[in-house]
Amino acid sequence: MKILVIHGPNLNLLGIRERHIYGTKDISFVNECIKKEAEKLKIEVEIFQSNSEGSIIDKIHEAMDDKNIIIINAGAYTHYSYAIRDAIASTRIPTIEVHLSNIHAREEFRSKSVIAPVCVGQISGFSYHSYLLALKAAAEIEF
Amino acid sequence: MKILVIHGPNLNLLGIRERHIYGTKDISFVNECIKKEAEKLKIEVEIFQSNSEGSIIDKIHEAMDDKNIIIINAGAYTHYSYAIRDAIASTRIPTIEVHLSNIHAREEFRSKSVIAPVCVGQISGFSYHSYLLALKAAAEIEF
Amino acid sequence: MKILVIHGPNLNLLGIRERHIYGTKDISFVNECIKKEAEKLKIEVEIFQSNSEGSIIDKIHEAMDDKNIIIINAGAYTHYSYAIRDAIASTRIPTIEVHLSNIHAREEFRSKSVIAPVCVGQISGFSYHSYLLALKAAAEIEF
Amino acid sequence: MKILVIHGPNLNLLGIRERHIYGTKDISFVNECIKKEAEKLKIEVEIFQSNSEGSIIDKIHEAMDDKNIIIINAGAYTHYSYAIRDAIASTRIPTIEVHLSNIHAREEFRSKSVIAPVCVGQISGFSYHSYLLALKAAAEIEF
Amino acid sequence: MKILVIHGPNLNLLGIRERHIYGTKDISFVNECIKKEAEKLKIEVEIFQSNSEGSIIDKIHEAMDDKNIIIINAGAYTHYSYAIRDAIASTRIPTIEVHLSNIHAREEFRSKSVIAPVCVGQISGFSYHSYLLALKAAAEIEF
Amino acid sequence: MKILVIHGPNLNLLGIRERHIYGTKDISFVNECIKKEAEKLKIEVEIFQSNSEGSIIDKIHEAMDDKNIIIINAGAYTHYSYAIRDAIASTRIPTIEVHLSNIHAREEFRSKSVIAPVCVGQISGFSYHSYLLALKAAAEIEF
Amino acid sequence: MKILVIHGPNLNLLGIRERHIYGTKDISFVNECIKKEAEKLKIEVEIFQSNSEGSIIDKIHEAMDDKNIIIINAGAYTHYSYAIRDAIASTRIPTIEVHLSNIHAREEFRSKSVIAPVCVGQISGFSYHSYLLALKAAAEIEF
Amino acid sequence: MKILVIHGPNLNLLGIRERHIYGTKDISFVNECIKKEAEKLKIEVEIFQSNSEGSIIDKIHEAMDDKNIIIINAGAYTHYSYAIRDAIASTRIPTIEVHLSNIHAREEFRSKSVIAPVCVGQISGFSYHSYLLALKAAAEIEF
Amino acid sequence: MKILVIHGPNLNLLGIRERHIYGTKDISFVNECIKKEAEKLKIEVEIFQSNSEGSIIDKIHEAMDDKNIIIINAGAYTHYSYAIRDAIASTRIPTIEVHLSNIHAREEFRSKSVIAPVCVGQISGFSYHSYLLALKAAAEIEF
Amino acid sequence: MKILVIHGPNLNLLGIRERHIYGTKDISFVNECIKKEAEKLKIEVEIFQSNSEGSIIDKIHEAMDDKNIIIINAGAYTHYSYAIRDAIASTRIPTIEVHLSNIHAREEFRSKSVIAPVCVGQISGFSYHSYLLALKAAAEIEF
Amino acid sequence: MKILVIHGPNLNLLGIRERHIYGTKDISFVNECIKKEAEKLKIEVEIFQSNSEGSIIDKIHEAMDDKNIIIINAGAYTHYSYAIRDAIASTRIPTIEVHLSNIHAREEFRSKSVIAPVCVGQISGFSYHSYLLALKAAAEIEF
Amino acid sequence: MKILVIHGPNLNLLGIRERHIYGTKDISFVNECIKKEAEKLKIEVEIFQSNSEGSIIDKIHEAMDDKNIIIINAGAYTHYSYAIRDAIASTRIPTIEVHLSNIHAREEFRSKSVIAPVCVGQISGFSYHSYLLALKAAAEIEF
Repeated sequence: MKILVIHGPNLNLLGIRERHIYGTKDISFVNECIKKEAEKLKIEVEIFQSNSEGSIIDKIHEAMDDKNIIIINAGAYTHYSYAIRDAIASTRIPTIEVHLSNIHAREEFRSKSVIAPVCVGQISGFSYHSYLLALKAAAEIEF
Repeated sequence: MKILVIHGPNLNLLGIRERHIYGTKDISFVNECIKKEAEKLKIEVEIFQSNSEGSIIDKIHEAMDDKNIIIINAGAYTHYSYAIRDAIASTRIPTIEVHLSNIHAREEFRSKSVIAPVCVGQISGFSYHSYLLALKAAAEIEF
Repeated sequence: MKILVIHGPNLNLLGIRERHIYGTKDISFVNECIKKEAEKLKIEVEIFQSNSEGSIIDKIHEAMDDKNIIIINAGAYTHYSYAIRDAIASTRIPTIEVHLSNIHAREEFRSKSVIAPVCVGQISGFSYHSYLLALKAAAEIEF
Repeated sequence: MKILVIHGPNLNLLGIRERHIYGTKDISFVNECIKKEAEKLKIEVEIFQSNSEGSIIDKIHEAMDDKNIIIINAGAYTHYSYAIRDAIASTRIPTIEVHLSNIHAREEFRSKSVIAPVCVGQISGFSYHSYLLALKAAAEIEF
Repeated sequence: MKILVIHGPNLNLLGIRERHIYGTKDISFVNECIKKEAEKLKIEVEIFQSNSEGSIIDKIHEAMDDKNIIIINAGAYTHYSYAIRDAIASTRIPTIEVHLSNIHAREEFRSKSVIAPVCVGQISGFSYHSYLLALKAAAEIEF
Repeated sequence: MKILVIHGPNLNLLGIRERHIYGTKDISFVNECIKKEAEKLKIEVEIFQSNSEGSIIDKIHEAMDDKNIIIINAGAYTHYSYAIRDAIASTRIPTIEVHLSNIHAREEFRSKSVIAPVCVGQISGFSYHSYLLALKAAAEIEF
Repeated sequence: MKILVIHGPNLNLLGIRERHIYGTKDISFVNECIKKEAEKLKIEVEIFQSNSEGSIIDKIHEAMDDKNIIIINAGAYTHYSYAIRDAIASTRIPTIEVHLSNIHAREEFRSKSVIAPVCVGQISGFSYHSYLLALKAAAEIEF
Repeated sequence: MKILVIHGPNLNLLGIRERHIYGTKDISFVNECIKKEAEKLKIEVEIFQSNSEGSIIDKIHEAMDDKNIIIINAGAYTHYSYAIRDAIASTRIPTIEVHLSNIHAREEFRSKSVIAPVCVGQISGFSYHSYLLALKAAAEIEF
Repeated sequence: MKILVIHGPNLNLLGIRERHIYGTKDISFVNECIKKEAEKLKIEVEIFQSNSEGSIIDKIHEAMDDKNIIIINAGAYTHYSYAIRDAIASTRIPTIEVHLSNIHAREEFRSKSVIAPVCVGQISGFSYHSYLLALKAAAEIEF
Repeated sequence: MKILVIHGPNLNLLGIRERHIYGTKDISFVNECIKKEAEKLKIEVEIFQSNSEGSIIDKIHEAMDDKNIIIINAGAYTHYSYAIRDAIASTRIPTIEVHLSNIHAREEFRSKSVIAPVCVGQISGFSYHSYLLALKAAAEIEF
Repeated sequence: MKILVIHGPNLNLLGIRERHIYGTKDISFVNECIKKEAEKLKIEVEIFQSNSEGSIIDKIHEAMDDKNIIIINAGAYTHYSYAIRDAIASTRIPTIEVHLSNIHAREEFRSKSVIAPVCVGQISGFSYHSYLLALKAAAEIEF
Repeated sequence: MKILVIHGPNLNLLGIRERHIYGTKDISFVNECIKKEAEKLKIEVEIFQSNSEGSIIDKIHEAMDDKNIIIINAGAYTHYSYAIRDAIASTRIPTIEVHLSNIHAREEFRSKSVIAPVCVGQISGFSYHSYLLALKAAAEIEF
């Protein structure tokens, strides 16, 4: 099993800024956790971070070559990127939407996910564990 | 760690009917999975299914004796049972809301959860794995 | 052909109270009529009454074993029990909704049936004859 | 005179949780007070607590055998149980609605009582004394 | 303990007319009951009836001299007398609002009480016993 | 036949002030006309004027002793005195509402009569003849 | 020059209660100030306080005998007494509306004066000095 | 005590035109009255009239040098001059708003005062006496 | 007959700027035309231009000394100067409102004239001929 | 004539996925058709695909060097990319908007094109023929 | 290069009052800064402050004689002076609008600038530096 | 002091197209000006242009290494890029928003800036000088 984990815009700053919202763990720590968890689960994992909508779409397309599942935290693109939505829908790779914080408990514009309707499920509000739970879901579930 | 897993109304039919929505696994299979997962995680788990709102409330109350966490799929009661909401709020046991299917991608009346405001998080759309993921979250995260 | 007839909450009081609305015939008289009609139509009939939402759901589930059709008067649950609705939808047994009085001609809150969308039809306002008409419909129509 | 006192859902937790809203007295203390008051008033009292809508309805029906009056705190069912409303209306046993707190001074959804129109009166906002006052009303008033 | 009981406009006709709404007991009978109950509870009671808004306000003011609690049935003034509301608010004497009939089950204009926000509680629908219950509440509860 | 004629607030000033609205005849002239008309119709008439809402209610109550009909011009109380409305409703004496001017053709606030729903009819806009017409109605019609 | 000063409902409690709104001076102090000011201005002043709408109307009518001006603080009646408004309009005695506090800076229902359209002017927000200023206005101005 | 009295636009025509609204006294008469009154009250008074918004603002600024209080009749500027409002707010000199006529009983656009929120009080409807009353208020009240 | 012609703010720039809107004729040319036309009509004319709201008001006041009619182009003050409106209303000199361009065919804010209600008429859109037409109107019509 | 054909995000997946919406022809087939059509029409054509908003903008800019017309299918960017809109507007190269499916007959969010206002026309719903029709339009029409 | 800097109403009080909004620097300090900056930039600068709308318009007109650019902080006139707007538009002298504070972050009425549409640009929120930046803009830019 | 200047989408076309809106200077000229100005102000400046939202976010992140201030013209991204907004908010580097043209005087959709709430100020409408002014502001003001 091969999984692509996508961190969307600004997630490279994780743990450095706005810790009161996103927690104190930085992106490398989170990535370490993801890798360890993947190893444990015998999943081959590729982690990709980009602040670019187009690169995220390219990456989603590439995933058709050899990935079974996508785990995506689309950051602010969650709220307006119909292009990422279309990418997910086109590739038909089962995609799990994750969020560090509870997106329904923040600013109004963050309460709408335009990608949710094309994802298999959503894990929201468990900090970086949201990724780990998604990995486990990917490891165990046949989508 | 002791966890109570609650299956709400109609979940006993799991895997028998409406497989296109809820999957092909039946409730005993799901429960076996839950038990195995719990054993692996060294969690003592109690599983409870009822079609009755009152019995679900009773069970939530009993959980105060010796449970650390509740995992609940309240089925259709999710959408109108203020009594179950009050039960969760009264006991103050950290509660994870799970759903087999994505509740936001179905009929309008399913898009509102009256219990969400008193739960710690939501895992939605992973079939019976939603329960297993909740167990893992319970095992690893300190609420 | 085997049919399950379900009397919902408070219908055990039929003919004893509120006769101006529901008529003077008690539940045993109604049940006698149902049985005679069924015999005439060569239908095997089982009659069940409960005031509990959960028990009604349980019974609907059991019907999957050997019933072809359900005739249900869900009483006040008609107006808010999405859980009974889900039970009917899950079992996929053709279900006929009946009411003694015309629910559309009474208090505002009685004008909405949440189970109607998953039933094959509704017969309302013919006193206990509503049940008999439903039996006839079941006998003659291929659902 | 025989009276049935019904405590609805979650009232068994009285005095244990959410004391800032419902006070510090637990359900057994309240029941003791009710019993003593009943004894003083030469009323035979039966106290019933259930978290189940169906059991509450059953109990209301049973009350027709030998109860003269019902005192009910329907908890969260107050706001949506048309089935309990119908049970009260069907049995025609004079019923007094009580509330510990002022239901009009809390969350919006608690400001509506669907059972009020079929009750003889309402006593609201006197903590557990609301029950005692209802007992006194029952003892002295010919409904 | 000294209590002032105020009967508002038209309550002097009690038991004479509209018996289907207010019962068959006349005002002197009601007052006798109030006095007896007060004696039993060792409460010194003063009863006052007036059809005049101004006289009711005067009486509320006088109560500051020696009364601990006011029990008021403000009749139709309940619905528009901001002057009586101001009187209650000014004197700061704990005040219990009583009604013979259930004000929420009658004409629309009776469903609003402009004095409720400045009262400690409400007893509604027990005919003249509403007064007696208020007396008992006053005797037993520390406001 | 005995009739009570009630002049409400400010009608004692009739003919003295605001003649452009209410005409030039003073209250004693109007009363003379009422008395003559009554004599002609063989009606025994009692005329009463008060500026006090409470006194008008008192008088309506007294009318129960020996009056068959009430004719009332409630002045400005017409627009907000639910207490006078209740007084009329309580006594159940057939009551005719009269106004000197057309209350519907003046300031907005004068277009609503809260006593109208409990009166047998309304005669408005005929100056002091409104009273005389009411007397004639009382003499000829069996209420 | 003879002036009638009217204190409306609850103003007899001035300085005793709710001092944060109305100031610490009691009604007798205010009346002393009014009398002294009147003496200084060679005005014959009559001070009248009533909590009764009817008595206030009567007093306004009586003022026609010998008063040149009315100064009125109608208290809560300001907001709904069309009868007091009509009394002022009928007598045509120049009337000055005074308020201790700024009526536009409090609860919504206090922001509307139904008597303002028939008064010559309004002095609002100067505590008890509002009355003294009105006296001075009366002494010096020819209305 | 030094007071600045400001007459806004068109007030120099006072007493010459529109006497039915503003009275028959001309501006010099009014100013004489103001000066006499000030002398009596041992107030040093400076009177200023301008039709120019800017000159009024200049004058308000100058008042910071030696004035304790400002009395302003801003004429039509009352309704739109946010610049005069800012001037009053900036200088923080206690300011009394006066109007010759009752601004609430005329054209709709006159019912809004943009300067009211930064003034200590309002005297309205007493012709030129509004100024004299304001002087007296200034002399007697400690702002 | 003596007429005052008032050019409001920015009209001194006429013919110099924004010629596409206001034409190519400068203010002295326009004034020459006005004077010639006046001579022809045997009207004594005084022409006044100011950019100051206050000075325009002052001039309108002065016109009371010896002018029969005012012709005013109030420029942008047309849209918000209630003070100029009051000046015109106060002096009661018949006033004709003129505009070079059609104010109703330009920006939204120019479509409202607050001085129109106190003017005898409006001539708009005829370039400098608007003034000449107003002169002719003044000569021929008896206001 | 030189034309640039732009395929926006996800169009590289054409014919591989979601064939029920976009048809079974893949991007290379479509490109072949475009090239053949162009040859027939004697148009020199360059075809470009990118998932990146920024790269599409870059390409539009480059087109200024030697292209006469742009044909663009902006995919999901159609609905929110004001940046692509500005790119088209800046270059002023006549641009034809094409869509494979009828964007007005699908999800609500697809019914709005923010680039339409700066394009010369739109061809929508003819599968890959939309591109061919655009080529023909470009060949025949002088923009 | 000659520049006119206009300070609108109340800006002469800068630094004296309301320092929490406008900063602690007074108008002479600001003017010194402006002069020094102008000298450095070899700009001849004239600074003008007026509280008068008319004087500001006059000054804008005069600027046509020898000024190349106007820098204006119109204070409260910003929000309603269409006359200043017309003056700027008429003279066609390039005008820069400046504000000390961010006008969009204060009271609602301050969020609209009626002069913005006729200005070349706006510098907002840099305290007195807004003027200096405008000077630099004026020095370097050819409008 | 080290400053990052960001040119958003389409700004590379500056001076080539739409010169009536954005001026005739091209991007390299603008960059030369920025560099010279920076040199003069002893600011180390880095200039970056991208049509890609993601690259702009990357650059904002990099700025955390060694930049003190960001000057950004986000072009059309100004109106919808919550991802750029989040980038600015995350890095917490003081950011000045600049625009070549006056964004409030163009199409409706350009009047909203989603990045404004996280910027320190806005300079709008001075063509490429907006950047230079921002540089100066950065050099002189302590944020």
